[in-house]
Amino acid sequence: MQAEIISIGDELLIGQTINTNAGWIGEQLNKEGIRIHRSTSIADSKKDILQALFEAEKRADLILITGGLGPTKDDITKISLCEYFDTKLVLKEEVLFRIEEMFADRGIQLLEAHKGQAEMPESCIVIPNYRGTASGMWFERNGVVFISMPGVPYEMEHLMENILLDKIRKHFKRPAILHRTILTVGVGESFIAQKIEAWEDSLAAHQIVLAYLPSPGMVKLRMSSYDVNDKETVEKIMAIKEAELHELIGEHIYGFEKDTLQGVVGELLRQNMATLTTAESCTGGFVAHLITSTPGCSDYFQGGFVTYAEEQKAGTLGVDSALIKKHSVLSKEVAEAMAVGARNKMNTTWAVSTTGVAGPTGGTDEIPVGTIWIGIAGPNGVRSFKMKFGKRRDINILLAANTALNLLRKEILS
Amino acid sequence: MQAEIISIGDELLIGQTINTNAGWIGEQLNKEGIRIHRSTSIADSKKDILQALFEAEKRADLILITGGLGPTKDDITKISLCEYFDTKLVLKEEVLFRIEEMFADRGIQLLEAHKGQAEMPESCIVIPNYRGTASGMWFERNGVVFISMPGVPYEMEHLMENILLDKIRKHFKRPAILHRTILTVGVGESFIAQKIEAWEDSLAAHQIVLAYLPSPGMVKLRMSSYDVNDKETVEKIMAIKEAELHELIGEHIYGFEKDTLQGVVGELLRQNMATLTTAESCTGGFVAHLITSTPGCSDYFQGGFVTYAEEQKAGTLGVDSALIKKHSVLSKEVAEAMAVGARNKMNTTWAVSTTGVAGPTGGTDEIPVGTIWIGIAGPNGVRSFKMKFGKRRDINILLAANTALNLLRKEILS
Repeated sequence: MQAEIISIGDELLIGQTINTNAGWIGEQLNKEGIRIHRSTSIADSKKDILQALFEAEKRADLILITGGLGPTKDDITKISLCEYFDTKLVLKEEVLFRIEEMFADRGIQLLEAHKGQAEMPESCIVIPNYRGTASGMWFERNGVVFISMPGVPYEMEHLMENILLDKIRKHFKRPAILHRTILTVGVGESFIAQKIEAWEDSLAAHQIVLAYLPSPGMVKLRMSSYDVNDKETVEKIMAIKEAELHELIGEHIYGFEKDTLQGVVGELLRQNMATLTTAESCTGGFVAHLITSTPGCSDYFQGGFVTYAEEQKAGTLGVDSALIKKHSVLSKEVAEAMAVGARNKMNTTWAVSTTGVAGPTGGTDEIPVGTIWIGIAGPNGVRSFKMKFGKRRDINILLAANTALNLLRKEILS
Repeated sequence: MQAEIISIGDELLIGQTINTNAGWIGEQLNKEGIRIHRSTSIADSKKDILQALFEAEKRADLILITGGLGPTKDDITKISLCEYFDTKLVLKEEVLFRIEEMFADRGIQLLEAHKGQAEMPESCIVIPNYRGTASGMWFERNGVVFISMPGVPYEMEHLMENILLDKIRKHFKRPAILHRTILTVGVGESFIAQKIEAWEDSLAAHQIVLAYLPSPGMVKLRMSSYDVNDKETVEKIMAIKEAELHELIGEHIYGFEKDTLQGVVGELLRQNMATLTTAESCTGGFVAHLITSTPGCSDYFQGGFVTYAEEQKAGTLGVDSALIKKHSVLSKEVAEAMAVGARNKMNTTWAVSTTGVAGPTGGTDEIPVGTIWIGIAGPNGVRSFKMKFGKRRDINILLAANTALNLLRKEILS
């Protein structure tokens, strides 16, 4: 079975709006065992809409269309669909009634433009929208299903979740798709690929395919099995394969599916009834930001320090000025003293510190841009780690913060 | 002229990764006078890649391809391009040299998989990538240009900004386009649209079009003039129109083009030889992170405090415990005391503080989720501001941080 998405809207093509609908729809259908084979964004142009529909119909069994259903003149999806399906707009009383009710509810006066929203293609099944004036449409022709939905994510998601996913499920009785995503940190995709080469090759015999999804400092590994009939067996095989992967690269695996590194670290702290503070120089508050992006972090996060200026490392964290003078702020010794200082100040179980040259300037021959020390102070003393990243400030901050969280994770576990 | 984007990657179709590349490329090309007519996402499948290329070639003059260039087995864009252009992979010494250098720089050992990244289609022009191992490629056939780039945004953007945009500009010799982008903060697009309605209408007579580019808490206003022959005249008119805009909404304008709010605030501090510290609760370090994302911020940023736990507001910042008990940490009084405390601790000209309920839970009837106080302490005392945002934690943190920076900007200016 082939499914496609057509997203309609000038704003998607000029970068004014990022198309989050396509990914969301893909994720939902994927869970139903329906794989999106192609996703196309086009302009609010009748010619482009008709051409995209014509091409998609030749390839696909299910075509999901979003956008271009508003009351303004630039929205032409509905009249384009009428032309494509050789039908005409007719006033649908039940749609008008729903729109009138919605406006009465909000105490807003109904405009003429809104009444036009109750005119629908005669040959479609109307999919009611209780969150806006643009109804959804379901067309069938030669065994192909066409679904048109509004582009506003909150309205589109409502139509999908409440009506369409169920209707699609009943119409196409699909074999399931199974995915399992394993999250790694601290090593590159080439390193992983080499370590797991034989394991990766072994997946083919089970009709499992592997995808590497890299981002700075992290790699997601996704196993996928399509056209699954015996769900239980495939789940068992994936569990075995996952256990094998742990044998190979377990120390680099921090979580699964939608886990975040900061969420995993937070959960470890919570389980251990431990608390955390941060002492950041080059990461400038980004480690604290990552930790506090997880709801409920007040269970373990006391707070932190950003000691950007040299005098604050001494004044605020109590790092010995003589130590700074002897080793400079860019040193193992100061990273460790910062972590110890912060841990004492906030009286926590753990403390993480960073100091280094984030760049783009400020490096020397001995300490080039991208050199960053990370300190971890805990119940068993303090350790530090020297990192060598690249030249980009934003990436260095991101890499240093993720590395700090990962080192903390390992220290807690060990 | 017709341009298309083809984004390759299973992860885009199942919603694991949102395709931000297509929008970014569309925005850049739009500035060059090139409009994207279609953007297609397809799977890592040779059949799909070849079909998409074949179809696009019939329609477009320029085809931009991203993704599928990694060193792992699931990445098959390069071999698909070889088949499409009837060419073969050859080892390019200069690419190997660049990759070896990059690895030597980072002190990482080169793996066999990385060497494969130096094998490129014989008939392409290689576009060097200094941020990763996947080089870009430029092909031409029957007057159509095909450009293949890595899918990692920061590598793709690097290739576009440093090499490809210039190369595309020279190849297609498009009539000039002039843009001027004015950056506003703190008001919504409907508010601005109403305030500048007559001004906006006046642009048409000069063939200038206006785009509203909203993001949380901010709106960019971009004036564009296409097919410009007399550059000097259009620049003069845009300068006049910009001055008129200042008359209308000047207090909300913080900068132009690629300015950032934190960069503008930093420059104000530098000019005034002033220093800054932060005292964050609900923003959890994000204000400090924004400030330290600007290179050279050590000229004015001393550092900051993240006092997430109640006891740290008292212990670390010296906020009077009786004050906290009387008003709770969610109060104007505590926001002000936090700013004053941080300013005293780090002995700076200015201090910014935040306290509130970022969400998604933790609200009450009196203080619902999204209620946030911002304190600004400076040479003339301390002020505070109560904000009411929505229910989403990440958006609330972003809005609170930007609002804090904007309030600081206004206080420094006044």
